[in-house]
Amino acid sequence: MPADIRSMKWWGWGDEAVEFDISNRPELWPYISRSLNLKSDKAIDRPVPLESIVMPAQHLDSAFVEELRRLIPAGRTEDSRLVRLTHAYGKSLRDLWRVRRGEIGYAPDLVIFPETHEEVVAIVQAAIRRAVVVVPFGGGSNIAGCLEPSHRDDRMVVCVDMRRMDRLLHLDEQSETARFQAGVLGPRLEEQLQSRGFTLGHFPDSFLFSTLGGWVATRSAGMQSDRYGKIEDIVIALRMVTPSGTIETLSVPKASSGIDINHLCIGSEGTLGIITEVLLNVHRAPERKESRGYLFPDFASGVEALQVCHREDCVPVMARLNDPNKTALSFAYKSAQSPLKRQLSRGIKTYLRTVRRMQLDRCCLLLAGFEGSPESCERERNRAEAIYRRFGAFALGAEPGRAFQAGKYDFPYLRDFMMDRGVLADVSETATMWSNLMPLHQSATAAIQSAMDRESTGGWVGCHVSHTYHSGASLYFTFGFVPKPGDEFVRYLRVKRAAEDSFLANGATLSHHHAVGIEHLPWLEREISPAGIKAVEALKNGLDPQNLLNPGKLRGGFTFADWGLPEEPQK
Amino acid sequence: MPADIRSMKWWGWGDEAVEFDISNRPELWPYISRSLNLKSDKAIDRPVPLESIVMPAQHLDSAFVEELRRLIPAGRTEDSRLVRLTHAYGKSLRDLWRVRRGEIGYAPDLVIFPETHEEVVAIVQAAIRRAVVVVPFGGGSNIAGCLEPSHRDDRMVVCVDMRRMDRLLHLDEQSETARFQAGVLGPRLEEQLQSRGFTLGHFPDSFLFSTLGGWVATRSAGMQSDRYGKIEDIVIALRMVTPSGTIETLSVPKASSGIDINHLCIGSEGTLGIITEVLLNVHRAPERKESRGYLFPDFASGVEALQVCHREDCVPVMARLNDPNKTALSFAYKSAQSPLKRQLSRGIKTYLRTVRRMQLDRCCLLLAGFEGSPESCERERNRAEAIYRRFGAFALGAEPGRAFQAGKYDFPYLRDFMMDRGVLADVSETATMWSNLMPLHQSATAAIQSAMDRESTGGWVGCHVSHTYHSGASLYFTFGFVPKPGDEFVRYLRVKRAAEDSFLANGATLSHHHAVGIEHLPWLEREISPAGIKAVEALKNGLDPQNLLNPGKLRGGFTFADWGLPEEPQK
Repeated sequence: MPADIRSMKWWGWGDEAVEFDISNRPELWPYISRSLNLKSDKAIDRPVPLESIVMPAQHLDSAFVEELRRLIPAGRTEDSRLVRLTHAYGKSLRDLWRVRRGEIGYAPDLVIFPETHEEVVAIVQAAIRRAVVVVPFGGGSNIAGCLEPSHRDDRMVVCVDMRRMDRLLHLDEQSETARFQAGVLGPRLEEQLQSRGFTLGHFPDSFLFSTLGGWVATRSAGMQSDRYGKIEDIVIALRMVTPSGTIETLSVPKASSGIDINHLCIGSEGTLGIITEVLLNVHRAPERKESRGYLFPDFASGVEALQVCHREDCVPVMARLNDPNKTALSFAYKSAQSPLKRQLSRGIKTYLRTVRRMQLDRCCLLLAGFEGSPESCERERNRAEAIYRRFGAFALGAEPGRAFQAGKYDFPYLRDFMMDRGVLADVSETATMWSNLMPLHQSATAAIQSAMDRESTGGWVGCHVSHTYHSGASLYFTFGFVPKPGDEFVRYLRVKRAAEDSFLANGATLSHHHAVGIEHLPWLEREISPAGIKAVEALKNGLDPQNLLNPGKLRGGFTFADWGLPEEPQK
Repeated sequence: MPADIRSMKWWGWGDEAVEFDISNRPELWPYISRSLNLKSDKAIDRPVPLESIVMPAQHLDSAFVEELRRLIPAGRTEDSRLVRLTHAYGKSLRDLWRVRRGEIGYAPDLVIFPETHEEVVAIVQAAIRRAVVVVPFGGGSNIAGCLEPSHRDDRMVVCVDMRRMDRLLHLDEQSETARFQAGVLGPRLEEQLQSRGFTLGHFPDSFLFSTLGGWVATRSAGMQSDRYGKIEDIVIALRMVTPSGTIETLSVPKASSGIDINHLCIGSEGTLGIITEVLLNVHRAPERKESRGYLFPDFASGVEALQVCHREDCVPVMARLNDPNKTALSFAYKSAQSPLKRQLSRGIKTYLRTVRRMQLDRCCLLLAGFEGSPESCERERNRAEAIYRRFGAFALGAEPGRAFQAGKYDFPYLRDFMMDRGVLADVSETATMWSNLMPLHQSATAAIQSAMDRESTGGWVGCHVSHTYHSGASLYFTFGFVPKPGDEFVRYLRVKRAAEDSFLANGATLSHHHAVGIEHLPWLEREISPAGIKAVEALKNGLDPQNLLNPGKLRGGFTFADWGLPEEPQK
């Protein structure tokens, strides 16, 4: 693998050198063990040793490999054991479950690291000639099973790792747009922009390990999407290499030139082609950024405040509203405090309970972000706080914001820590209209909790509103449980299914920003209607008639049995 | 035709009863005649009498007609001469040119007025069985040649007039969304919303005569799109009846469920199916609405002010910035003034010339719109005006805004008045990035002017910025000329081609909000790339394999000869 490309741990999230450090969060384990009915904090279920893993046999098409040798310099193709392993799966719970057990049913036969658009064109052309399957790879951070092809029909599979394509190609300072190669990782993208005084403002939880092309292919949302939009709102134009040629759209802010070609590429999840370049709206880097915490008396009042912010055209860059359980987890998550701060916290609690008459177990934490010039930042914060106050919020100041910003990319590491301790933890997120938000929150929470009650010896579910819009908002559920012994993974699927079933049954979407992959594929036909499936399949058949690009995704007819769950769900 | 459906004039724009009234605009004809080198204001080129028109032979598929009789009550299918005529064409210059001369090469064989989604499904199913061509019809207001099918191959053609499908199906007051049948005309849509205290805020120039479904199928923009978005930004979900079933998308604010199915339907220009229902973001009707005029010393300073408004997050609902020629036309367009007002105008001019040292022939009029609560309206206006002042603007007060609001839907009537006088007048609009706006304005103006110099005895071109975005804006060119004698229509095509060629050559789009139809079809492949054409054709072939829906649109291989211009353009 090229020396500058560092993959995540083969068995879990993030940097090899980083493990979740619970020792500085004294209240976290007590909260978790109480919630999950856990007796011990000992690691009981570690990944198998790397050496013990049996990799699937490599299928090399010698004519393709020969041609590739002419196209791509040595050192930028790789088929070592570790490289194949780190490019086999993403980071879904199913992926981690298998890889930790050494169950590697699939791995690409070869990984290629192109550096230019032209190299990608050449790779795809060579793949067409030899009927080789092509799987585009960004950072490998997806949690929906986006990387593993099906219907490979004994064909060779190459994985095209885009991370060498990480350059800013053009910054139009006047128009505030930037054209990047699509393989750029979040930090490298921001670094190139910020050195010129700009920012993209797109910060998904996976920011450190995900790429621009991956964001576009999966319709990613960042923490500040309330202001800057989801990635599909930020993209102005792109280039995508398909088996039928390169789709290339114009650098114009808006057009009326028939069907919007950008939107055939955005969200295509690697099934139609490889995105090589993207032109984006960027912004002058704000002089000031701040995050603050507010405590609402309950979830409903917080939700209402968020909607009123839209109605009154006062939308902070970020608004993450935790429900009571997630609020409790957030407070348990915080770092060790000085005795003074601890006393202060106790004082605030007493004040809230006695003077404000809040029921602390119903309280909900909002983390709100503001940015801009010092004046606009303050103006906006004042307006937002006035709205929050109308709904009974108590301002907690800048400390919860600082804590959130400091730890915001650490949370995925916690999942590995929990898996070591026999806990299955996952997330399911959705979006719905404001009028349906509270009913959905209640139904989905109940559905997840009740599935966990059946399948586990202890389960916890919490939720936060992660993104808000004029007409509605997302709900992001986090859950964890200790499965009853036997069929643990199937028990997980039952809980995951309960979550997704409740979303669709209540008129919400299968995912707000995590993509379909295979983890959400059983629900796709309900989501986009059978004729919608036909439309997507028409595109696929027309642009990729040999079914070379990431085959088996975004299609109909994928059953719960295909997904791993043979039975009908329990009622 | 059902009694409640009133079509526009068969030979021109708008209500039968309304003619452009120039008598109350004393400065208009002097300005026009001077600009176009016109000697007389006499009508010299009136439409032929209706009775003289020879309609194309009707092709009826008797089995289809028989089946339709069972599906649709009598009185809601029509094949009278006038109904066929008013459903043959839209209102492009080509359309008016032909219809005024009685050159009716195409008309639908039958017009159907469905009332429900289910009736539309039944019509499309019957059409499939009998291989009948189907052309969806909204208000017939398009100016891009969107209605006339090609490749009909001797098949019967039915036109599905959607205007009986005009009901508000559901208003979600809490989420601020509304579901409408897609055939609702602008005024009826606003009336149903405003009676409940809401507004859509979508006011295209064609508002009085265009439908929701038409807006969605053509990616329409309204005068207030700076705030509320183009229609593609307003649509949340829809139903579209295709030959492969009904596409139906979820009522959710955002999703990550693969390719966005809404965006396969939006902009499909009737080629994939008939849009029957649309769920929209709506807004509480503002307490206050106001429009005001500002005079900038030149076009560049006005353009810069508009961009700074985006940068500082202070975007009025409307910002129409005229270039110097369009400014002169706007002032000439105004109604007769009282002597006092005239004197006041003169006084202002003197002040601007002597004290502000503006060159009046370089000045540019901005019409800006503000709305909201009285406080938010004023707060926003103050902020915007502070920005305008930084760029040297002089506030003209509310009078230009009132004049604009009073006459905003009259302008299309002027084209018929001009055609009566031998003048060909048209519009071509585009969009580009801020950094390219001034160069494009200069190039396109020069290209149009130079083409008119070759083809006419007098030509005028003006432009306004009609819509602004973070990264760029639209440029809307209006031009009129008296063609040299002989080949008048080809001369028009040469001028139109010069405009569009200059857009594409300068990196701008073929249209910002007028759709492709046949008038912009020669440029589509350059706009969306050959692989983009393949993608659109893949959708068409997959969803409509018999090529029944509005055939011949959104495709490649449409040459300038097909368009009516056999020669290569003059250099």
